[in-house]
Amino acid sequence: MEMARAELSTGLAALDMDAPVLIQAVPDADEGYEILTTNENITIRGGKRGVLYGAYALMMRLAAGFSPETPWTEPACPLRMLNHWDNMDGSIERGYAGGSFFFRDHHLKYDEQRILQYGRLLASVGINVVSINNVNVHSPAGLLITQTYLPELKQVADLLRPFGIRLLVAVDYALPVTYGLGTADPVSPQVQEWWKRQVSLVYQYIPDLCGFLVKADSEFRPGPHMYQRNHAEGAQPLARALKPHGGVLLWRCFVYNCKQDWRDAKTDRPMAPYEIYTPLEGQFDDNVILQIKNGPYDFQVREPVSPLFFAMPTTNKAIELQLTQEYTGQQIDLFYMPPQWQEIQKTLGENMPKYISAVSNLGDDPNWTGHDLAQANLFAYGLFAWHRNVDPAVCAQWWTRLTFGPDASCNQTIVSMLLSSREIYESYNTPLGLCWMVNPNNHYGPSPEGYEYSGWGTYLRANRDAIGVDRTTSGTGFILQYPEKLAAQYNRVETCPEQLLLFFHRLRYNYRLPSGKTLVQHVYDSHFSGAEQAKALLCAWQMLKGKIPQETYTNVEERLMRQVSNACEWRDVINTYFFRYSGIPDEHGRVIYP
Amino acid sequence: MEMARAELSTGLAALDMDAPVLIQAVPDADEGYEILTTNENITIRGGKRGVLYGAYALMMRLAAGFSPETPWTEPACPLRMLNHWDNMDGSIERGYAGGSFFFRDHHLKYDEQRILQYGRLLASVGINVVSINNVNVHSPAGLLITQTYLPELKQVADLLRPFGIRLLVAVDYALPVTYGLGTADPVSPQVQEWWKRQVSLVYQYIPDLCGFLVKADSEFRPGPHMYQRNHAEGAQPLARALKPHGGVLLWRCFVYNCKQDWRDAKTDRPMAPYEIYTPLEGQFDDNVILQIKNGPYDFQVREPVSPLFFAMPTTNKAIELQLTQEYTGQQIDLFYMPPQWQEIQKTLGENMPKYISAVSNLGDDPNWTGHDLAQANLFAYGLFAWHRNVDPAVCAQWWTRLTFGPDASCNQTIVSMLLSSREIYESYNTPLGLCWMVNPNNHYGPSPEGYEYSGWGTYLRANRDAIGVDRTTSGTGFILQYPEKLAAQYNRVETCPEQLLLFFHRLRYNYRLPSGKTLVQHVYDSHFSGAEQAKALLCAWQMLKGKIPQETYTNVEERLMRQVSNACEWRDVINTYFFRYSGIPDEHGRVIYP
Repeated sequence: MEMARAELSTGLAALDMDAPVLIQAVPDADEGYEILTTNENITIRGGKRGVLYGAYALMMRLAAGFSPETPWTEPACPLRMLNHWDNMDGSIERGYAGGSFFFRDHHLKYDEQRILQYGRLLASVGINVVSINNVNVHSPAGLLITQTYLPELKQVADLLRPFGIRLLVAVDYALPVTYGLGTADPVSPQVQEWWKRQVSLVYQYIPDLCGFLVKADSEFRPGPHMYQRNHAEGAQPLARALKPHGGVLLWRCFVYNCKQDWRDAKTDRPMAPYEIYTPLEGQFDDNVILQIKNGPYDFQVREPVSPLFFAMPTTNKAIELQLTQEYTGQQIDLFYMPPQWQEIQKTLGENMPKYISAVSNLGDDPNWTGHDLAQANLFAYGLFAWHRNVDPAVCAQWWTRLTFGPDASCNQTIVSMLLSSREIYESYNTPLGLCWMVNPNNHYGPSPEGYEYSGWGTYLRANRDAIGVDRTTSGTGFILQYPEKLAAQYNRVETCPEQLLLFFHRLRYNYRLPSGKTLVQHVYDSHFSGAEQAKALLCAWQMLKGKIPQETYTNVEERLMRQVSNACEWRDVINTYFFRYSGIPDEHGRVIYP
Repeated sequence: MEMARAELSTGLAALDMDAPVLIQAVPDADEGYEILTTNENITIRGGKRGVLYGAYALMMRLAAGFSPETPWTEPACPLRMLNHWDNMDGSIERGYAGGSFFFRDHHLKYDEQRILQYGRLLASVGINVVSINNVNVHSPAGLLITQTYLPELKQVADLLRPFGIRLLVAVDYALPVTYGLGTADPVSPQVQEWWKRQVSLVYQYIPDLCGFLVKADSEFRPGPHMYQRNHAEGAQPLARALKPHGGVLLWRCFVYNCKQDWRDAKTDRPMAPYEIYTPLEGQFDDNVILQIKNGPYDFQVREPVSPLFFAMPTTNKAIELQLTQEYTGQQIDLFYMPPQWQEIQKTLGENMPKYISAVSNLGDDPNWTGHDLAQANLFAYGLFAWHRNVDPAVCAQWWTRLTFGPDASCNQTIVSMLLSSREIYESYNTPLGLCWMVNPNNHYGPSPEGYEYSGWGTYLRANRDAIGVDRTTSGTGFILQYPEKLAAQYNRVETCPEQLLLFFHRLRYNYRLPSGKTLVQHVYDSHFSGAEQAKALLCAWQMLKGKIPQETYTNVEERLMRQVSNACEWRDVINTYFFRYSGIPDEHGRVIYP
């Protein structure tokens, strides 16, 4: 409650506001709060951590010019997590906003003020768990849970604790090997004992640690498969070591064969997680949470939801979103994510996992997210994690108002840019859910067959007649991993959502879509229009010149100009690619390079 | 002469031979020598450095069991150069035989014995000039010509001098900028003065330095174009600074637009060097040597010779070959190069440049070249640089006999493996001189369109009907850079050498080659056969088990097994690629993955 009071008083002073605010504890409540108003004063009533959230909510409502009155609200999800992919050398895997603000020179080296600002940033939108090291645990990050680095890690935990934020540590499954045992086999009693001792040590330093996060048997990471153990067996020693301390084990399900033979058309990468995990239903300990990426592939611009969300009803699950824009424009192109999340929520309904996680888009750039407008994704993620049913437009309005002040015309422009951004990006990018037309490794810019013959399981199988992988019941059968109704919908070209057509179906270039257009004409139209719309985004922004701070203006303008050039590149490459294969010219005679 | 005597005496002792050898100086001669025999003794007569070459020649002839008698021989080329692409952190750009044996931790750090062995290795095949640092001069290698590193560099020069080997240093054109002047503009008197002073300093340490090697305005390297100066102007200050010391300036002509727009079908990368340099004929100082890669692209498996060799008759030129197998199997796949050089020699005839250079294939692997059999390329390069008209078979026999001893059946197998290796590699690789179907960056393994939409100027422009760039008089006109007769030959599909068909012509898949096969059937046949032949190489080698040293056997066998797998990958990817575009099945019904 002291924290809430302190934050409130500093915050209101910074906002140049003077409101008489009472704070009342609600016994037995934790994160929930409400804000009541009378003629004389404002009262924040809330649980232990709820009052702090209430304080931030109040400040935001006042700053945005809304009435403070807020009915009782509690988070839909007890763990609202942010995963940083920071390496201890200070780099960030898939980071587009500068370097790490936690690590440098293989140590936790940071500006303490920045960590406090970070704590406030996260707490103000309700995020309460963070992992700060990369799930690909590169040396020496494995040692974060050892005596070597625990004293340093503890200091970060201490800094974040007042903000209601707990740490999660991404751990190296093979640490027992390098740490002297020579094995990490989960059924080995020594290994089990080792994890117990190690976890006890960690909790001596950080008594409220949330738990561990593990990427095992994935993309060359070690895991239980090395010992012919399944992932339920693999998770057990860690989960049981964490259990007595109240810790949880976040176990990532991003597992597939990344050395697939492209000739093998039977193996279908999106099928892997479901195939690997569903046989293990009922076998995971109750403090294990399976962390599942939103789609079955890997944060592509458009994917269906992972079928694993509908399965394993008695197993704890978390959904993993990606705020950092690996495949969605790398914080150069504008891509506002809540419309995607809303669709996921709508498709999943009651199957939406209880827990939620997102890969951070933050770095040590002065504006935190590289692209100023990409801040909106972190803001919206906090609201989405808390409420689940937030309207993307409402989030955008909130954020814009809080960021740029009350100018209505200015805000309208920015909100509309945000809301249209995903559709625009998608329309000049990989068409119809086809995925993977990006440059290998850096994942920015088009290379339609850059991944075609590689081992990553990412094939388009285009030829002169057709493109796409048939994942229907007459193809790989991936569709059968979905519940019956959804499977039936996806299985028929006529009922499959247009944006997912080429995810599920192999189609001829002259196939006629419900719109009446041929597939290839749809691709052309969408790409010509997408590039135009990217230009329109830039024009819209340029109309705001003088209305918003110069630094922000320049930051966003410079990026929008790069987006326009990127969009033209995508348009021309993808149109050319389809034209070269199909030989079908654009009906409207626009320029397609031969 | 002392060196010749010492090497001879150590060498003969090591060979367990005892021959009465006289050494006689031939006044006014330099590198030439002859070996005369009488009943009583053997006489090496030679020039200042010639007697050393004579000594090595004698030992090799004795070791191989040939008569020592050798008529007077002189090198065709006064500078027989080897260019290492070693970085000062110990890595080697495009190196496939371990790390650098010159550099470590940003210093010249080496095993002195290894440097002496290296000197002997090179001198025994007549190489007399080496550059040891990468032409891409990464920091701090720019400082090799400054007080910071000259004392270290001098020591290497001193170690190699007794072997008749002089140093060349790859320099950073922008060094005057970073070294305080703020500019490297070649017409600036301060810059000219700066180079003069710097070169004088270098020659204080290394009085017999051969000169400098420069990669300017190429692949993000700085150069005179930054100051709107042409390359003749750009070379001048360095050449004039070197001149009083007897130094030469090797100026690389590997210049092209590496940020080309793929949409631009008029710009044709292979045309760049000719376009850039021929207008400068007569403008280079007489101690400048233009160093030109053998082909107009970049060491592809098959290219025509660079047309620049036929131009600029009054300008000094060097041909640059690549021993390190960047695009030719990376010392995993077997690729014996002399057949390629013989073709180049034959095509160029009297236009063969006076000077010759090759990118080193050496590293700190115990066997020097990663693949044991790749040593043959260095050996043969020395002979080629000296004689020009060496028979690839003779080179192979020499090398095999010297390396593996007198077993005739064993030698026959190895010689025949070497001689067939280039054709085999080519037959499962990129077909018909098409080039660039490799994985971007690492350049190993197939990715047919990996470079298609990039900025490197490397386009195939395949569509459902045809593939290749039309470089004839009705296309980009590249062919016009060749002398009339050659241009006429290349310009007609009927007379163009088959291996270069798709380098010069854009052809339909069903185009009928002189062999009577369609283009696509040729691709299929060649790739099926190539993979079979790769297997045959392995089988041939396995027949030698027990006949050659175990370590060598294992080294080569392991690599041949990887070659077989690589060959199958190439076969399947390239066949599939052509099948997907053309839709034309294999006439013989062999497996092509759809």
